[in-house]
Amino acid sequence: MRGITLALDAMGGDFGPDVIVPAALQALRYYPQLELLLVGKPAAITNYLVKYNSISNDRISIVPTKYIINSEAKPSQAILSSQGTSMRVALELIKVGRAHACVSAGNTGALMGLAKLVLTPIAGIHRPALMVILPHQNNGKTVVLDIGANIKCNAMMLVQFAIIGEVIAKQIIGVVNVPRVALLNIGAENTKGFGNIHQAAKILSNISSINYIGYLEANELLTGKTDIIVCEGFVGNVTLKTMEGVIRFFLSLIKSSDDSVQHNFSMNTNIVCNFSYMNPDKYNGAYLVGLCGTVIKSHGAANQQAFTTAITQAVKAVERQISKKIASRLAECWITTE
Amino acid sequence: MRGITLALDAMGGDFGPDVIVPAALQALRYYPQLELLLVGKPAAITNYLVKYNSISNDRISIVPTKYIINSEAKPSQAILSSQGTSMRVALELIKVGRAHACVSAGNTGALMGLAKLVLTPIAGIHRPALMVILPHQNNGKTVVLDIGANIKCNAMMLVQFAIIGEVIAKQIIGVVNVPRVALLNIGAENTKGFGNIHQAAKILSNISSINYIGYLEANELLTGKTDIIVCEGFVGNVTLKTMEGVIRFFLSLIKSSDDSVQHNFSMNTNIVCNFSYMNPDKYNGAYLVGLCGTVIKSHGAANQQAFTTAITQAVKAVERQISKKIASRLAECWITTE
Repeated sequence: MRGITLALDAMGGDFGPDVIVPAALQALRYYPQLELLLVGKPAAITNYLVKYNSISNDRISIVPTKYIINSEAKPSQAILSSQGTSMRVALELIKVGRAHACVSAGNTGALMGLAKLVLTPIAGIHRPALMVILPHQNNGKTVVLDIGANIKCNAMMLVQFAIIGEVIAKQIIGVVNVPRVALLNIGAENTKGFGNIHQAAKILSNISSINYIGYLEANELLTGKTDIIVCEGFVGNVTLKTMEGVIRFFLSLIKSSDDSVQHNFSMNTNIVCNFSYMNPDKYNGAYLVGLCGTVIKSHGAANQQAFTTAITQAVKAVERQISKKIASRLAECWITTE
Repeated sequence: MRGITLALDAMGGDFGPDVIVPAALQALRYYPQLELLLVGKPAAITNYLVKYNSISNDRISIVPTKYIINSEAKPSQAILSSQGTSMRVALELIKVGRAHACVSAGNTGALMGLAKLVLTPIAGIHRPALMVILPHQNNGKTVVLDIGANIKCNAMMLVQFAIIGEVIAKQIIGVVNVPRVALLNIGAENTKGFGNIHQAAKILSNISSINYIGYLEANELLTGKTDIIVCEGFVGNVTLKTMEGVIRFFLSLIKSSDDSVQHNFSMNTNIVCNFSYMNPDKYNGAYLVGLCGTVIKSHGAANQQAFTTAITQAVKAVERQISKKIASRLAECWITTE
């Protein structure tokens, strides 16, 4: 391997190689040191490489697989019959050292289950989490986890997610001061919400190296009051999707407004520019964190731009050696609490 | 009583009579048959009635009380020492038949607890819920409950919320066909989410008079795919606040865009008009449903327009005899399942 090598599940998502091949080519233009392994059906991938005049690009290799995990399949069943699928083979390429990370737009549940099976969690991590980096209104970013890997979490899982989020805030977002950590809750008072949240708050307050700032309500998610917000996977998933629904609705309104009134275009462009960084396509790529290896989950419906963004996330995670840094920060925090 | 009489907790919320008195006067202009009981400190209320030249308005009476429930107070403690507070007296006015309904912008937890204590739940209702009516992008409205009264719910509570929501969709929104009921979940598949959601889905599917359409994800909340969406109070509260945060952020962007570019104003106005019905001020007023009596909870930070909207909600609920209709629909559904 020279530079960074990523394994792409070329068959995953709603569009498979139709979107993933051009996204891969775009990413190669961004990163001269990047190499990509396109995992999937050779004929399908080749068709698109020919279409984009890239059949002889020596930074792309095809890793042939026969099978595909259906995006509608029940994760437990999909995992049972996952041998030889593009998703599993992409993950195995990390395990055997051929790739540094993997990106897939396939079945989320299957990807999480397989990643845990193939890559195993970092020592001490109870459960890996699904994490996303959201832009906020003060031109910064907020790390949100868990957004769906674990619908229910105990206090210690929430604490571990906070520590993982802290590493991401420093390494990926580039937060300079000690990152601020908040727990998502339905009020600022101690009595609000569930027992596991109260316990997590207590533990986080007692780790002196963590800048725990308390509970945050969901209407403050975009205000930039925190660098990391931690929640259980069910509520995290609902939060993210609620946000996505409102933003897509807003963007569609602006678009229809543009269509109906041709003049005054500059104003709309102005608003769109201000707001479009909130477009889910721009922050596509959820990190599956807490594993010995980097796995990025793209939206199933990702378009080319969105899938390229997901590849970008993988490159950054590899460059910053996220898994290794999570492991060492975790060890540090346990020392602090002793 | 002639027409409709409402008791307003004049001391509740962040602004008390400063907002509530002018909002009350505005509501009286909308509804010629409305009478209002302003419950609170007479001197404070009188000041504002004088300010608005309404001291001799014979459709307003002051019901004097000495005490106020602090909006930061722990609900259980607030309830213990609630005798003689504006919130409690406003609820008691329903109980003794002097008012048809009550509106308060005060401490949510205390209001829910006191309402249950003073008004008691409708026979058969396990737990009252907090409900909101949200506008959606197809020019209709969606009933969402529970948005915070019960952070955790069992399956039967979710089923009862669905039935309550159905009555509201028919009576308040005016849905003509059998209203569509969905459960909020993190995927459409049967295996997604928690056991209580799965059980509720099963029960709802078996009640033939209910138009249960399945699980809905949070990014579809504004699409108008359902008339009623049912969820547990924790996740409902987070969903609503997430939405509120994104919408307020969007409205602030448009405002700052307006300020910086004076021309092209028509375009922004156009977008604002399209979107402003999503402004939380416009749909202020959560219903506390499932009680023998109508209670509307206004945002604590409601401005005059928002508090008037909350009064409007109370008027509609009284006009449509919501509590009575919920009780009879509930009885009907149990007959259907037998």
